[in-house]
Amino acid sequence: MADTDTLTGTLTGTLTAAATGAPDFSGWSCPMPLRDYPRVVMGHGGGGAMSAELVANVFGPAFASATQAALADSAALTLGGARLAFSTDSFVVRPLFFPGGCIGDLAVNGTVNDLAMSGARAAYLSCAAILEEGVEMSVVGRVAQAMGAAARAAGVEVVTGDTKVVESGHGDGLYLNTAGIGLIPAGVDLRPQRARPGDVVIVSGEIGLHGVAIMSVREGLEFGVEISSDCAALGGLVEAMLAVTPDLHVLRDPTRGGLAAALNEIAAAAQVGVTIVERSVPVPPQVANACAILGLDPMYVANEGKLVAFVPREHAEAVLAAMRAHPLGAQAAVIGECVAEHPGMVVARTALGGTRVVDLPLGEQLPRIC
Amino acid sequence: MADTDTLTGTLTGTLTAAATGAPDFSGWSCPMPLRDYPRVVMGHGGGGAMSAELVANVFGPAFASATQAALADSAALTLGGARLAFSTDSFVVRPLFFPGGCIGDLAVNGTVNDLAMSGARAAYLSCAAILEEGVEMSVVGRVAQAMGAAARAAGVEVVTGDTKVVESGHGDGLYLNTAGIGLIPAGVDLRPQRARPGDVVIVSGEIGLHGVAIMSVREGLEFGVEISSDCAALGGLVEAMLAVTPDLHVLRDPTRGGLAAALNEIAAAAQVGVTIVERSVPVPPQVANACAILGLDPMYVANEGKLVAFVPREHAEAVLAAMRAHPLGAQAAVIGECVAEHPGMVVARTALGGTRVVDLPLGEQLPRIC
Repeated sequence: MADTDTLTGTLTGTLTAAATGAPDFSGWSCPMPLRDYPRVVMGHGGGGAMSAELVANVFGPAFASATQAALADSAALTLGGARLAFSTDSFVVRPLFFPGGCIGDLAVNGTVNDLAMSGARAAYLSCAAILEEGVEMSVVGRVAQAMGAAARAAGVEVVTGDTKVVESGHGDGLYLNTAGIGLIPAGVDLRPQRARPGDVVIVSGEIGLHGVAIMSVREGLEFGVEISSDCAALGGLVEAMLAVTPDLHVLRDPTRGGLAAALNEIAAAAQVGVTIVERSVPVPPQVANACAILGLDPMYVANEGKLVAFVPREHAEAVLAAMRAHPLGAQAAVIGECVAEHPGMVVARTALGGTRVVDLPLGEQLPRIC
Repeated sequence: MADTDTLTGTLTGTLTAAATGAPDFSGWSCPMPLRDYPRVVMGHGGGGAMSAELVANVFGPAFASATQAALADSAALTLGGARLAFSTDSFVVRPLFFPGGCIGDLAVNGTVNDLAMSGARAAYLSCAAILEEGVEMSVVGRVAQAMGAAARAAGVEVVTGDTKVVESGHGDGLYLNTAGIGLIPAGVDLRPQRARPGDVVIVSGEIGLHGVAIMSVREGLEFGVEISSDCAALGGLVEAMLAVTPDLHVLRDPTRGGLAAALNEIAAAAQVGVTIVERSVPVPPQVANACAILGLDPMYVANEGKLVAFVPREHAEAVLAAMRAHPLGAQAAVIGECVAEHPGMVVARTALGGTRVVDLPLGEQLPRIC
């Protein structure tokens, strides 16, 4: 019989201390800017508080009844008796090609992963391209080939598309959009709102690789070792996890805004606290080094092939084992737990025994990362 | 009992003459350029032969098994037992606001109409925006409001979204993408491949308004009377038509490339001939005047609230009556028929009694019209 205290051994002790010995955060509030921006700034696309505010204040009210749903990366809906997940993302990453991938496989995996976070296996994708006049046809061809290969790898079919061309100087080579639909299996109900105190927080592997890979090529930085994006499709990993139990509570892929944004969104949506042990978060040395040089926090750096799971404690050990048995979850680790204290807030226990608030990022550390 | 000879009275006579008395087109072939373009040019986004070639040569092979499907504006598929239509379009129209609409309602109606052409009532939409740094927030807000209003008018819910921001000089204020899903009613199978000799070709109203409206504001032209885009959601009109019979053969919204492109795509897909009587095509005087000044052919000018239908002859009169009873079909008119002769080719009988080939347009008359 699984002994979750063995599983989360050190963690449980540390977390309890963190939860009970932490400073009183009751007067604290998230620094949502709530400012009137007369014009769009880069931060509105960063996936942090400014993005959330743009959606909440501009798009949400316009779409009226759909306010909440429109905020979702992936919508769960019923159509013709089928329970479907439906999701979309545009991709404006620069450069178009980077170590470990390109905008093409990113566009496929990004939407496949958004669907997977609803528990759905992606079935069909759309692909819409906005080409800039003058872009080399060979670039378009390589990107299309990468999309096709990624789609076949993920077992998803591209069934409908669109191509537009804009004048030179009104694009950046190539922008892509994918939307996807997939079936949500019976009994699966994955939503940020379902996080519950007691849930164990598991991350599927090392964080920060996508963001640092983009940064290294964009800024011409070298960190001694080439860092590749972790861009990958997570549908198979999620299926392995759901085979343990359909009763996972939340899955989230920590893309723009990193792990910090994902955990904050969940904490806010469920009005629960999240407590993590900083040293248990798997940060590979090359990411740690790059972040140290650049003055960044790995918690805020984008990932494209990782997920964070909120798992009922009784299933945590089996789910962790299933993840580790999958190639994309081999480095899976328990990083914290969901608590009743400090609702809406993410708190990290630092390596030195201190406690800090892990804020929702405001804008972005690095724009156009996906 | 409907007398289709009464319905298509003059037409039938003229068409028969056109079909039998026409020059021999057997040696003719569509001027598909089949050229190697080293770089993307504006014509690749025009919805004509160059767009088709880009899809056929670059995207199609990359997506492998999905080649045919990827060419479709709207894919019909089965998921969880439900028959769904799935479609996407990006919108890069310039200017963002034009007489009769803006990029926001265009983005909603464009995808709603693509779904309607599969016979599906749009149920859910995604909305992804690529904002250019520096665009006025009030512009984003007005566009979002227009999307919301158009969605409510069309009875479709925006359920998932995405926002990206690109640096100033890498966009043009705002690009939108929508994808949509809807249920295809039982017994409905609308595909270009289903066009059959004998089908009556009906257009739902006056053509050319969207393209001329955009042109008039973009080029600062005045044609004595303001011309408004016909941008509208066609789901209700299609429902009214399908209520007559689910056995319509083809519906198509003649957007980029106009009626000429839509008819050519159908003729090519079904390997049938299409014969139209030029004077029966409803061209409003202001479109005719504008086209005369600009040297354009109304057959190639974009529409955003019109459809062309291929209807089995025995249902044509009843379908036409149902269309005329709907506000968006009040000016519906029979414009021609589907024939066994000149497969893959669209032939027009001119007002002077001559016959001409209506080619698939190569590129575009006016870029960024949608």
